This record gives sequence, structure tokens and C-alpha cells, in this order.
Amino acid sequence: MFVTFEGPEGAGKSTLIAALAVEFEQHGRRVVRTREPGATSFGTEVRRLLLEGDNLSAETELFLFLADRANHVQRTLLPALREGAVVLCDRYADSTLVYQGYGRGLDLAFLRRANEFATGGLRPDLTLLLDLDPEAGLARLDSKDRLDREPIEFHRRIRAGFLAETKLDPDRWILIDASAAPDRVLAQAKEAILRQLSGEGGE
Amino acid sequence: MFVTFEGPEGAGKSTLIAALAVEFEQHGRRVVRTREPGATSFGTEVRRLLLEGDNLSAETELFLFLADRANHVQRTLLPALREGAVVLCDRYADSTLVYQGYGRGLDLAFLRRANEFATGGLRPDLTLLLDLDPEAGLARLDSKDRLDREPIEFHRRIRAGFLAETKLDPDRWILIDASAAPDRVLAQAKEAILRQLSGEGGE
Repeated sequence: MFVTFEGPEGAGKSTLIAALAVEFEQHGRRVVRTREPGATSFGTEVRRLLLEGDNLSAETELFLFLADRANHVQRTLLPALREGAVVLCDRYADSTLVYQGYGRGLDLAFLRRANEFATGGLRPDLTLLLDLDPEAGLARLDSKDRLDREPIEFHRRIRAGFLAETKLDPDRWILIDASAAPDRVLAQAKEAILRQLSGEGGE
Repeated sequence: MFVTFEGPEGAGKSTLIAALAVEFEQHGRRVVRTREPGATSFGTEVRRLLLEGDNLSAETELFLFLADRANHVQRTLLPALREGAVVLCDRYADSTLVYQGYGRGLDLAFLRRANEFATGGLRPDLTLLLDLDPEAGLARLDSKDRLDREPIEFHRRIRAGFLAETKLDPDRWILIDASAAPDRVLAQAKEAILRQLSGEGGE
């Protein structure tokens, strides 16, 4: 099972992933926790270029994310899924659509095609969107990186973009209110995953 | 004027570019000599990843080349062309089509679209193909990098790919016999460029 986690920085993705990993392991499942960008040693280098590189254009940034994704799919995700692990991945193709498309204005049709190419068609079984008001998310962050210093309008486009994507594929997406306390977020996530796994479908 | 140089390693692209730069400068033109990948400081990092990275998949490699190209177009090529320089560039979008498409078998239609996206539509006015038998090209190289260690069949596909591309856009391409001595190669190139600039077209 391949589960991805999307939403802004500060929404609590890492905390939720850690808690869900414990749950799955308690049920005897092997769990692989990973993230984009930067999960492989190659990805670490790419992540460094992305975060340190000043003045990278939106197009340059896009292709670095895609290089990391193609490598991550082949080196980490496919092998883990083949071995039957539950893969919990912090950000994936939807982040590219939303940040580079809705956020930076790059062509969504090209982004979808490029994601398809980079992933070889590997799509998540489930995607949990930790939805949070941008002001609340930013307020939670200790240090701000390049993305976090974008104007608030950028972060509003990101939120709207994620919500628009959930509408296009409602069976895959699980919308979670990330303004709740971490134990409530975990409870929501568990309930939604169980509902989805038992075949009752989306929200 | 934007002129690109394509062909295998060992065909003499650098020697020809250096000689043509002198010619253009003697005619009072400002010349910018550049190359892909790796012309910018960002590109140097990307080039290092490409050359050192073992076992990069064709898709990962592709997106790194495109990241370098997008950055190179915006930081180097467009500013130089805007200032009226003659830009002589060692490899450009055609290398991606030919090495990743004809060579590694990636989808040519996607590669054309991705090149268009990475370059923002910037196309060369002229492209000089230094055509050379693969065995002859490889024999000229002192040290072999990752590409040069590919089997000879790979290099044959590269040559055939470049020749196929010249047929699709004959007004842009100039085919040069790179098995000739360097002064003959330069003479061929000068003659072809003059013919092309004077509007007589074709090879």
C-alpha cells in the first residue's frame, strides 16, 4: 500500500506519518517512511540545490523535483512496494502539481504529463491532505525556508490547489482538518484510512 | 545569432567552436561561448551529479539535463542574445532528443514537449552537426566517461538519430564531415554558415 501525505509545511505531516507508522507496525506490517525531495543520497544533493540555490526559476526548480522523483520511484518506492511494505511518503507528485502549477503558474497539463513520465505511472492508493489555513501553518514554523517566505497569496493558491485536486479524484484523497490537536488528526486519519480500505470509498 | 553544435564526443566540437569564435570576433562581433550541461555555477553542480552519479536511470538523467537547460537559457543564453552577441553553444536541446530519445529509448514526443518547456521556445538559428563514424569518434578520446563506455550500438543510434533530426528541419541544420582535418572542418563550417546567413538555405 502506497500512501502519500500532502499539505503545507507546519500542517503536521511528519508527526502524523510517525504515528501512523507505529499503528501499521503494531498490526504487523512492515513500514517504509520516506519523503520528497531528498530521500536518496542522490536526492539529498538535489534537495541541497533546491534549498540553497538562489534565484532558481520555476522551470529549473520543476525539473529538479522531477529528477528527484524519478530516482525516488525507482530506488525506493518500487522496491519497497514490491516487497509488500506499507509506504508512507511525505509529499509526492501532487506537490509538484500544486506548488509549481497552482502556485507558480506553470502549465498544469504539462506538469501532469511530466509527473506521469517521472513516476512511470506509479500513483498512490491513498493521499491524505492535511488542510490548514495558511496563516496558521506558517505561524507553526520555527524557521522559514525559501518557500515559507513566499507571500501569503502564494500559500492561499497552494491551499486552493490542493482542494481543487481532491475534487478531481475523490476516491484517492482523504481530507483532514489539520487545525485539530495531533491526537485528533491521527484519529481522523485512522478512521478515514480504515473506511477507505474497507471499500466504503471517499468522503 | 544563436548557433549550436551537435555530434559525438571526439568529433571536434570544441576545436571548431574556438576557431569560429576567433572568426566572428575578427569581424567585430561579440561572441559568447557556452555549453550544456554545466555552463553556470548551478550547472556545474548538475554536471557533477550527472557524471559522477552511478546508476542514474534514463528518466532521472533526462530531468537533470532539463534543469540545467532551463537555468542556462534564462541565465546565459537569453541575456547574451538580448545584448546582440553571437552565441556558440556546445550541445543543446537536440542532444537531449538524440541521446535520451534515440539513444535510451525515451518517448520522443515527450522529449520535444519538455525541451520546449525548458527552453521557453528558444531555438537555434543554426545547428552544426559534426558527423563522424562512432568508432572514429571514440578512438579520438583520451579518457572515457559514462557515455563513452556505452556499447557501440548506442553510438550508432546516436549518429542515426542526429541524421534523422537534420531531415526534419533542414534549414536549421548544417551537416559537416567531421572526419576531415580541423582546418577542413572549419572551412566547411564557415562556408555553410555564410551560405545560410546569405539566405541560400539548405546543406
